Amino acid sequence: MSMQPHRVVIIGGGFGGLSAAKKLKKTPTHVTLIDRRNFHLFQPLLYQVATGALSPADISSPLRGILKKAKNVQVLMAEVTDIDPQTREVVMDEKRFRYDSLIIAAGVRHHYFGNDEWEAHAPGLKTIEDATNIRSRILSAFERAELETDPQKRKSLLTFVVVGAGPTGVEMAGAISEIAHLTLKDNFRNINPADTRILLVEGVENVLPSYPVSLSHKALNTLQNHHIEVRTQTFVTDIQPGRVTLKHGDQVETLEAETVLWAAGVLASPLGKFLAEKAGATLDRFGRVMVQPDLTIPGHPEIFVVGDLAHLEMDGKLLPGVAQVAIQGGAYAAKVIQKRLQGTSMDKPFRYTNFGNLATIGWSSAVADLPFRIRLWGFMGWLFWVFVHLMKMVEFENRVVIFVQWVFNYFTRNRSARLITNEWAVDLTATEAESTPAEWVTEPD
Amino acid sequence: MSMQPHRVVIIGGGFGGLSAAKKLKKTPTHVTLIDRRNFHLFQPLLYQVATGALSPADISSPLRGILKKAKNVQVLMAEVTDIDPQTREVVMDEKRFRYDSLIIAAGVRHHYFGNDEWEAHAPGLKTIEDATNIRSRILSAFERAELETDPQKRKSLLTFVVVGAGPTGVEMAGAISEIAHLTLKDNFRNINPADTRILLVEGVENVLPSYPVSLSHKALNTLQNHHIEVRTQTFVTDIQPGRVTLKHGDQVETLEAETVLWAAGVLASPLGKFLAEKAGATLDRFGRVMVQPDLTIPGHPEIFVVGDLAHLEMDGKLLPGVAQVAIQGGAYAAKVIQKRLQGTSMDKPFRYTNFGNLATIGWSSAVADLPFRIRLWGFMGWLFWVFVHLMKMVEFENRVVIFVQWVFNYFTRNRSARLITNEWAVDLTATEAESTPAEWVTEPD
Repeated sequence: MSMQPHRVVIIGGGFGGLSAAKKLKKTPTHVTLIDRRNFHLFQPLLYQVATGALSPADISSPLRGILKKAKNVQVLMAEVTDIDPQTREVVMDEKRFRYDSLIIAAGVRHHYFGNDEWEAHAPGLKTIEDATNIRSRILSAFERAELETDPQKRKSLLTFVVVGAGPTGVEMAGAISEIAHLTLKDNFRNINPADTRILLVEGVENVLPSYPVSLSHKALNTLQNHHIEVRTQTFVTDIQPGRVTLKHGDQVETLEAETVLWAAGVLASPLGKFLAEKAGATLDRFGRVMVQPDLTIPGHPEIFVVGDLAHLEMDGKLLPGVAQVAIQGGAYAAKVIQKRLQGTSMDKPFRYTNFGNLATIGWSSAVADLPFRIRLWGFMGWLFWVFVHLMKMVEFENRVVIFVQWVFNYFTRNRSARLITNEWAVDLTATEAESTPAEWVTEPD
Repeated sequence: MSMQPHRVVIIGGGFGGLSAAKKLKKTPTHVTLIDRRNFHLFQPLLYQVATGALSPADISSPLRGILKKAKNVQVLMAEVTDIDPQTREVVMDEKRFRYDSLIIAAGVRHHYFGNDEWEAHAPGLKTIEDATNIRSRILSAFERAELETDPQKRKSLLTFVVVGAGPTGVEMAGAISEIAHLTLKDNFRNINPADTRILLVEGVENVLPSYPVSLSHKALNTLQNHHIEVRTQTFVTDIQPGRVTLKHGDQVETLEAETVLWAAGVLASPLGKFLAEKAGATLDRFGRVMVQPDLTIPGHPEIFVVGDLAHLEMDGKLLPGVAQVAIQGGAYAAKVIQKRLQGTSMDKPFRYTNFGNLATIGWSSAVADLPFRIRLWGFMGWLFWVFVHLMKMVEFENRVVIFVQWVFNYFTRNRSARLITNEWAVDLTATEAESTPAEWVTEPD
């Protein structure tokens, strides 16, 4: 007797989706993994692409390559445009795909707290394109400053504001400081990159607010040693091209800054909305889907939501949007499906095991908050950070290439991937004219 | 007595311009190197980026980094919009820059023989963006074929036409064959990438027409062993989206092919036109500047043209558009300037020393045409090719990273930089809608 195998559709090839797909390998299921991209992205190192230390491909692995030996897994590069929980179908434009179980691991994008017009002037960091655009912006600012004759304008070009002092914001600010003080040393003739001003703006009291206070203080110290001005309890009230307005208590300050980077908030994928409309799921204010302790949504035991898109509290605390939560969530969902196929059921709810939190601040310094109250900082924290990140890379080749580049980076302070590409390059063809930054030569002198 | 140093302006940071700048280091000159990009590109390996074997940064070196110790050299990222030989000024938008000597090394772009409308459907390979776009096109074709249910359309998606069988065309065709037969093996569930059809179209009688006939024949053999259909004495008469028309003698054939790549002709930078209009220089039919044996233009001993933009015959043969001609030309121009500053003059005309020509065909096969009638092919030719290209990289770090990736590539046939990026990725935001390839889901089924 030949039965149709149980069809699992996974939406998203990030940490959560990939973890689920791998776990379902060699089970009596037919798995379809759908992603808009053809690669899995190792997001914790995305800031290194945005700051020219690594190349996009170093932190990306083609999904088909990773899963080629999983014969029951099919990868589709497509965009999911709708979900129909009644007919149990996933819609990709005109195509429809039936599922028996659905795992949604679609992630989040940045969120501007109702000020979407800020996005054009203060890009966030979620995709490879975000990273190469930010890289081009940072490097172009120095290039334009070298050509600029107006001291006021030059100062604005050498002012960088990073909004949000979570791990991404701290890492971005640290890396920009390193670019200014080490990488670009002696590279210019008209400007001194060390004159660069870097501000890190955070709404709450401490940087790295999710870390223990002692590590937050250590991080603050390190940031200040890296010539970064940290402004806590400070909010951004406006962003215009070349200008940002900050509010601290009653004090309002407007800064001239050509480069503003956004690391302050995330907003869930629109797929959450479909679940709310069609399957009665509840969303939190960032659009994340409230899930039950088994990661399914109420009334739909066949629909799992894992990773950043899921809202689940454990021991009274919201699970953070980090890789480990997604990886463990994806594996858990896969396990539940497997158990059901075996006719048994999963008796334990999902429990996230926190193996620790890590953030680097510039080169050779990091803070690590580990289990058993182990805390590392400075060079020791950084060595641990390097080790963990290399080990977690999906492909061995990436590991070797990243290691080689880090060794060079460590000894030479070089960042070899310092490319200004796409629309940020100086006009390559006449047709690109409107998208190129032409303002740097507006003042005839 | 403090004299203003002799001002040299170099336009272009490719092989010719960089070679001149390096040669002028530590001479009593003030050198300004102007390029639209902030990096030097190692163009001979660009096809490896276009086919996912290497990352853009692997073959790029920041110009400022290369020249940071050359204290008399300033790098400007800007576009030259005009040249005024009367006032001896280079114009960058509203900015003007005086020179005493000018070295123009602005290179070429691809040329569609009067059919500029073909460019959109058959991109050429000159810039990093060209390479990442071609990479995305090639990989997207396989992704779309996997989703396609119409066998006719699927066949068209798996048909690749490379126009022009010079080194670039041969290398592109070889690399696509490798992707189809080795890299993507077992990666798909609905298609077999080995069904891919690859055509290499050349107008003249032999592939690699600038090589000795014996090597051309060896190359033809290798191409055919790689399942590439070679069509010589065949011309492209029309290119439409998804369709290309070929003409061989009186035979006309129209092929359905989603991916057409252009490696057939080059056209000189528009800077040549300025020289023709303002300094009376003569251009050949591809817009290259006819230079005198000392690489200057008639009546302007202070204006040098080097590299692909220069048209010079030696021993009755036009110098080819290869890296070595540019490197040697740039160094020669620098030497002439230096001699003049010493009050002597260069008595020898420019002589190009040909160290050999190399082209790879897929992995582990290449042809090499070397001095003393030494000819290598197959694996030996390839080993030589690997050695030469690694040694020629500007930066040691690039050398190591490329070596690591080639070792992995050799043993695993993997191409780790298989990323579909920018507008070729499936729609990431609503605003990109018009530029994304959406046709793959047009047939409801």
